[in-house]
Amino acid sequence: MALNPTTLINQALALAQQGASKHELPVAAILVNAQGEVIAQAHNLVETQQNPLAHAEMLVLQQAAAQGHKYLQECTIAVTLEPCPMCAAALCHARIGTIIFGAYDAKSGGTTNGPQVPQHMHHKPKILGGIEEQACRQQLQTFFQSLRS
Amino acid sequence: MALNPTTLINQALALAQQGASKHELPVAAILVNAQGEVIAQAHNLVETQQNPLAHAEMLVLQQAAAQGHKYLQECTIAVTLEPCPMCAAALCHARIGTIIFGAYDAKSGGTTNGPQVPQHMHHKPKILGGIEEQACRQQLQTFFQSLRS
Repeated sequence: MALNPTTLINQALALAQQGASKHELPVAAILVNAQGEVIAQAHNLVETQQNPLAHAEMLVLQQAAAQGHKYLQECTIAVTLEPCPMCAAALCHARIGTIIFGAYDAKSGGTTNGPQVPQHMHHKPKILGGIEEQACRQQLQTFFQSLRS
Repeated sequence: MALNPTTLINQALALAQQGASKHELPVAAILVNAQGEVIAQAHNLVETQQNPLAHAEMLVLQQAAAQGHKYLQECTIAVTLEPCPMCAAALCHARIGTIIFGAYDAKSGGTTNGPQVPQHMHHKPKILGGIEEQACRQQLQTFFQSLRS
């Protein structure tokens, strides 16, 4: 029932940690409606599914569409990492109301970094980045350190 | 067994026409391996599936991943319309070797128009646009005219 950005990102962080424990890049997304009810949630499944498109945001959008939610104007998605260009464009295609994300991604992000995809799309969601940024960044750094050790 | 760009786009045009007959935006994609064998093919299914992500290219990539083809360095995709930013990024994530497309899309394209997504991605496919451009453009125009009449 939460629409508080910090609360949503913390929920996503917990879900991303479940992904990390399955050797997935710890990124997770939670989609809520205007009442703050969770419609869909997922962590990355690229390794599990051996599918380079299985980003958390795409999985969440597919779940929403499968439930009959073609467009999501009243909805908010909270993601632990800045969406990449694919996910940013997909969120615009789905007419998402608001994108909240944690860590900025200067290398692979496509929302406020890189190609800044939403600026080129017909539908332009509200974007709120850097929520619980340090915790989100730390989660990714810890994961990459564990890969190297 | 065709790797000839014109032949591939004409195959995609025929598939797109099947989509138009089901009231789908006539856009289709065909994925072939280095031997020119078709791995996957699809036309848009946005209306049928009520899913704004069901672009031809995404459906083809999902089919390929489901068949165990996580990465597609040796493959070529032929699409009747310039891929949008979502599809362009997805094709780069899948490390596609070559993108061939028909009509340029100045309004919604994201490959050579708009955000020019591949320029921002780690993997940069070869891109060959404007193949059978007039036929591809005409197919879309005819579809839009039929909607208005």
